[in-house]
Amino acid sequence: MRDEVKATANGPNGDLSGRVIDGPTNPMVTPLLTDLYQFTMAYAYWKAGKHQERAVFDLYFRKNPFGGEYTIFAGLEECIRFIANFKIAEEEISFIKQCLPPSCEDGFYDYLREVNCSDVEVYAIPEGSVVFPKVPLLRVEGPIAVVQLLETPFVNLINYASLVTTNAARHRFVAGRSKVLLEFGLRRAQGPDGGIGASKYCYMGGFDATSNVAAGKLFGIPVRGTHSHAFVSSYMSVDEIAEKSLRSSDGSTTCEDFVSLVQSWLGKIQRSKSLHGIFGETNLSELAAFTSYALAFPTNFLALVDTYDVMRSGIPNFCAVALALHSLGYKAIGIRLDSGDLAYQSCEARKFFYSVENEFGVPDFGKTTITASNDLNEETLDALNKQGHEVNAYGIGTYLVTCYAQAALGCVFKLVEINNQPRIKLSEDVSKVSIPCKKRSYRLYGKEGYPLLDIMIGEYEPPPKVGERILCRHPFSESKRANVVPQHVEELLKCYWPGLSGKRREELPPLKALRERCMEQLGQMRPDHMRRLNPTPYKVSVSAKLYDFIHFLWLNEAPVGELE
Amino acid sequence: MRDEVKATANGPNGDLSGRVIDGPTNPMVTPLLTDLYQFTMAYAYWKAGKHQERAVFDLYFRKNPFGGEYTIFAGLEECIRFIANFKIAEEEISFIKQCLPPSCEDGFYDYLREVNCSDVEVYAIPEGSVVFPKVPLLRVEGPIAVVQLLETPFVNLINYASLVTTNAARHRFVAGRSKVLLEFGLRRAQGPDGGIGASKYCYMGGFDATSNVAAGKLFGIPVRGTHSHAFVSSYMSVDEIAEKSLRSSDGSTTCEDFVSLVQSWLGKIQRSKSLHGIFGETNLSELAAFTSYALAFPTNFLALVDTYDVMRSGIPNFCAVALALHSLGYKAIGIRLDSGDLAYQSCEARKFFYSVENEFGVPDFGKTTITASNDLNEETLDALNKQGHEVNAYGIGTYLVTCYAQAALGCVFKLVEINNQPRIKLSEDVSKVSIPCKKRSYRLYGKEGYPLLDIMIGEYEPPPKVGERILCRHPFSESKRANVVPQHVEELLKCYWPGLSGKRREELPPLKALRERCMEQLGQMRPDHMRRLNPTPYKVSVSAKLYDFIHFLWLNEAPVGELE
Repeated sequence: MRDEVKATANGPNGDLSGRVIDGPTNPMVTPLLTDLYQFTMAYAYWKAGKHQERAVFDLYFRKNPFGGEYTIFAGLEECIRFIANFKIAEEEISFIKQCLPPSCEDGFYDYLREVNCSDVEVYAIPEGSVVFPKVPLLRVEGPIAVVQLLETPFVNLINYASLVTTNAARHRFVAGRSKVLLEFGLRRAQGPDGGIGASKYCYMGGFDATSNVAAGKLFGIPVRGTHSHAFVSSYMSVDEIAEKSLRSSDGSTTCEDFVSLVQSWLGKIQRSKSLHGIFGETNLSELAAFTSYALAFPTNFLALVDTYDVMRSGIPNFCAVALALHSLGYKAIGIRLDSGDLAYQSCEARKFFYSVENEFGVPDFGKTTITASNDLNEETLDALNKQGHEVNAYGIGTYLVTCYAQAALGCVFKLVEINNQPRIKLSEDVSKVSIPCKKRSYRLYGKEGYPLLDIMIGEYEPPPKVGERILCRHPFSESKRANVVPQHVEELLKCYWPGLSGKRREELPPLKALRERCMEQLGQMRPDHMRRLNPTPYKVSVSAKLYDFIHFLWLNEAPVGELE
Repeated sequence: MRDEVKATANGPNGDLSGRVIDGPTNPMVTPLLTDLYQFTMAYAYWKAGKHQERAVFDLYFRKNPFGGEYTIFAGLEECIRFIANFKIAEEEISFIKQCLPPSCEDGFYDYLREVNCSDVEVYAIPEGSVVFPKVPLLRVEGPIAVVQLLETPFVNLINYASLVTTNAARHRFVAGRSKVLLEFGLRRAQGPDGGIGASKYCYMGGFDATSNVAAGKLFGIPVRGTHSHAFVSSYMSVDEIAEKSLRSSDGSTTCEDFVSLVQSWLGKIQRSKSLHGIFGETNLSELAAFTSYALAFPTNFLALVDTYDVMRSGIPNFCAVALALHSLGYKAIGIRLDSGDLAYQSCEARKFFYSVENEFGVPDFGKTTITASNDLNEETLDALNKQGHEVNAYGIGTYLVTCYAQAALGCVFKLVEINNQPRIKLSEDVSKVSIPCKKRSYRLYGKEGYPLLDIMIGEYEPPPKVGERILCRHPFSESKRANVVPQHVEELLKCYWPGLSGKRREELPPLKALRERCMEQLGQMRPDHMRRLNPTPYKVSVSAKLYDFIHFLWLNEAPVGELE
């Protein structure tokens, strides 16, 4: 095991409340979880005596995912947990030595032994915020060799976290607030902690619960689950059920033969005029499985009804068991549909439930919960809405957790200043030119309370003020500019790791609070930015002064060619 | 920390060589890394006294990914490591208790305390094999409650592993055997072990090295890396370089001012007639960065040349440093291109290198390695091939590791038999109907040595024999059938976890051997199955007897409806 080094309350980066900051959730997140070039560069910096030079890096993305115009920022807490415990263990140093040429000097490894993040500063937008392209999510300052070592783990920890949180928020948006959203993606996720991360961040993005038990334990997310098709097909007949008795809900009586009770209800349903003709014989292994499940979970009876045939077997079998439970004072929870035409089936099931309510006088039976699953995504949820459906809850897996519609967010980590000198990275592709300088960012709000735009300014420029007009310019386009008089101004970057600056460190809120922040931030946005189709882009700008400086530096750094 | 329980050589599942089987690579892979419904079902089985019933499950996928007609099977070793150490810790049991209704009986938790995989049997196709839809990758047998607990982790561990290995193999196929393939995906992967898994499985699928240091350490994969754009832009001028001396390669002399040597070579390049006109002034911060990097790594000089302008700055700066190194007896490795038109730039760079070779009489300078990166994928590699290029090595990240073209493989785990009774899962979608029965699978080879098809047969049917005709039927289509006379017959499922069966357990080969198996298996396939566009589907069949039985069971289980 690697050495564990914890930040303590006594150190400059200690938690103000005296708490130790735990390491990353995944113990595989170590200083070696980085690209080799971070170490080769560290060596070259060290060899040139440049390793302690103070550098400023911005972490940002260039384009919103999923064809949308917003992103949710997530992954910050894991980054802070990583740097709070950053220490290269001896066996890790041995391995780095194997990876570098033998000519590398030993003094470098002595340097690596001492490296930690006590003189690094991290400023970040709060986790769970709505964020936009080009605006730094993190600004990381510190000795260049150390900050470079953080690049790969930071980008790794933020990219997928932000992507899947955004995906979850988009699913919530299209499903609507009233639906229950369950994350069922563990088995299809990209590896074990792809699954665990998905569960955490989908909850942050607005899901209600997960099927993933490990994530429930790690993060306190509500966990849900009932049974699979295999459970249904593992039964051959009700004869397999040995223990048939069930106490009534209030404990007053015991039904000695719950199986017969179910069978008698099935008979009543089959003989009922209003329900007649919808089915003939139901599948008896399915009936046995449902009965057995109800005996195990009389207070939590939810049945998967599509193993054989939804309308001809699953629904009537479910109703027979649910009515038997009802006669003992229990209330069945509902059904899950996992294949076929979910809109049609949910409507037919709802009709059937209301018929049962009327036929047998069971109050609220019509409102029995219908959960739908089976390769759901934004598009299929939208299609269900258009078709009309009776689904109350969705279980969403593959498309949600793998972010199938766009499997990566392209966060980058760019040097913007070194030794107080602004730096720029040019590119033939203008969208890839970096915005130089150590910057501050602000969100400006308008009269109606909506955010109007984000603006980046140089560190020493005066911040935007409420009621004062400020010129906001597109960072790269000459003609795009707007005067704004903000009604409210919010500084975006807060100090999450003060290094030696003596600043107050922001607390890392619990997951539930991040989820609430996310919901609140989404609710605050002007609706046209949030549309699924053709949303209005949210404006991201720079001050006039920063604009001029970017273009001065650009011209300065670009080599002058000779036209032939 | 959770309790660690290791299989030992003394137990029935011990390693024959006496070695202990380590736990999963990611310590987060615990018995809780599963869907809650596996535990609710376990309770219902236990409550019904059914939990010890012997069940057989098949793990398989339904469709090859990426529009192809083959898949590579990967993830098996992690599954075996998981079950070899399967034990539910006390704190995990407490959490399960919190997730289930309070009515659940305590005896169940006592049962969970004792659960392990000593009476589970796992048969699998060897890892690194070419595999096809519907044919079981794993057949898992054991007490139904235990085997169900394995479903989610097994599918999680196999889905992404097989998907990304297949993706890597496809990239290798289009790049060709002569190119060096480097996996650079860690920062864009879906979480930390998405990155670590990608590095492992891309190596298995035919990549040569990774940038991921942690993966290099864990799995012995070659690690590669040089420097980033930030390194280049962190330099302002050569004045920053304090230590300017460099010993010659043979140690015989020392150049006291390597910086001046580089500058003089840059002057020679600029004044050269054959190279003239291609550039004016190069970027001097870039020159400083390259010089500094060469001083740190004189034997490993590889420069990223697109920070400012490839042809007008990066290439001439690289050549100046490379020529200075050469005059001291070193050989520069090459350049990396990370933006723009890679085909055009690589050809121009190659021309420039040959001009340098001729102008200055440097042998083999024309053959300097050109590495390309920047959002590469199968399509862009194919386009580069069509355009003509001079790239020797590719660094591939985002599209490779996130499997952007198809972010999930839909592996499933289906009950096929319980208590020796075959079971089937029906569906309105025929492709989702499961193939019942405990089965054996065989790969039949033709005269030319290519695999002809895979066939599944019932456990007690006689296996296909070399030289004997066998009727092979499509599992669901009446009309699709073929007689085959195999020249070679290979049984696909081997015993990787014998449980109490007393069978010999197959060894888990090291990663390098899996990679070799994968390369060999891919090389063995008939080329038309491997094409990128419109590949021929490989046939997957069942015996005539199994075909009849599937359809008998299907009719038997489907409820009979009444047409209204």
